[in-house]
Amino acid sequence: MPPPAPGDREARRKDVSEAVWAVLADKGFGGLTLRAVAAAMNGSTGMLMHYFPTKRALIAHALDLLEVRTAERPRRARPAEGLPSVRAILLDILPLTPDDTARNRIWVSSWDLALADEGLAGEQAGRYARLRGMVRPHLEAAGRLHQLGDANADAEQLAAAAVAFTHGLVVQALFDPDRFPVDVQTAMLDDFLASLGPGAGADRHLSRRPGLPGSAAG
Amino acid sequence: MPPPAPGDREARRKDVSEAVWAVLADKGFGGLTLRAVAAAMNGSTGMLMHYFPTKRALIAHALDLLEVRTAERPRRARPAEGLPSVRAILLDILPLTPDDTARNRIWVSSWDLALADEGLAGEQAGRYARLRGMVRPHLEAAGRLHQLGDANADAEQLAAAAVAFTHGLVVQALFDPDRFPVDVQTAMLDDFLASLGPGAGADRHLSRRPGLPGSAAG
Repeated sequence: MPPPAPGDREARRKDVSEAVWAVLADKGFGGLTLRAVAAAMNGSTGMLMHYFPTKRALIAHALDLLEVRTAERPRRARPAEGLPSVRAILLDILPLTPDDTARNRIWVSSWDLALADEGLAGEQAGRYARLRGMVRPHLEAAGRLHQLGDANADAEQLAAAAVAFTHGLVVQALFDPDRFPVDVQTAMLDDFLASLGPGAGADRHLSRRPGLPGSAAG
Repeated sequence: MPPPAPGDREARRKDVSEAVWAVLADKGFGGLTLRAVAAAMNGSTGMLMHYFPTKRALIAHALDLLEVRTAERPRRARPAEGLPSVRAILLDILPLTPDDTARNRIWVSSWDLALADEGLAGEQAGRYARLRGMVRPHLEAAGRLHQLGDANADAEQLAAAAVAFTHGLVVQALFDPDRFPVDVQTAMLDDFLASLGPGAGADRHLSRRPGLPGSAAG
């Protein structure tokens, strides 16, 4: 068989990436093998050896793919300063669509790999730091706009809490999608954000208005 | 070599379990092989084949071990009704000691395996439901005791949020222990619990007292 023409080669490369993604979404990194990828694209492991001479190369491609697809995913507009922007960022993370669910499932799967590898663990710690860094300025703005109950709240710590809440919800929702449909995840996020606001009790649901008297004290 | 006496057999079984645990804590389920377990106990894979004739048997033992060690871990007393008990339950989950850290690391690792296996995924969903069910009555008590800002809050949903926050903090702390030492994790949990309380802003830190006027309305 002659080698494929350049256009074919590009198309084949895309097919390979699609097959790697499908295996990850179904079986995670624990099930990522050349054999599984070959089966997913009705190809041969021999052909795949050309792309991935080692298991390490296959895993590296899978991690790249995850990074790229996460960076390139469609995202919500940032609607307004402060908590509404935090909401948009966190909604962009939650598994609300099949694509979001697959991506999250693959991220959670990657944690096993990352915890066992110092370099990958460092990259994941950096990713968390960047995510907190993305949320933090909007929480600082929320403080200035009197959207927070505690005007002196540590925005970096609040960002860590918001990321924690969101990723913990991701994991619960992945295991029990019937218990956590889109409206439940969204309501839980809104309740979480409202709990950062100045209102209490029934007032929480209106908590985007300026601080209640006395709430910014201290 | 004669077969070991019954007492020796029991001791050997414990050694095997310790070695399995050490491999899991270091490399996760992704790195759990007979060879790794043998190396961890200076034994032979041949000897281990007696205990684990298949990879499946090794994984099943590892999951049992995780379940048993989680159930048998030392726990805090439940200090008082309501939010203080929620706090004790969630502190018992966080990676605050080396043992807690190893156990959490192995749990997070198990999610990759569980997401790829319908039976294991169902067990994990059940585990989450039981954890929410353990937290919920204390949140209901918190509502009765006016420890919550929203007297009509859905205790099951709040329990899901508390579990989400806690597990998301677990994952961030595992990847970045220097950023999340014991005092930071504890303060973040306390801030989270305070955000459920009736106080707002600076009042949050005193929020275990009965509800502020008007906060239980609605």
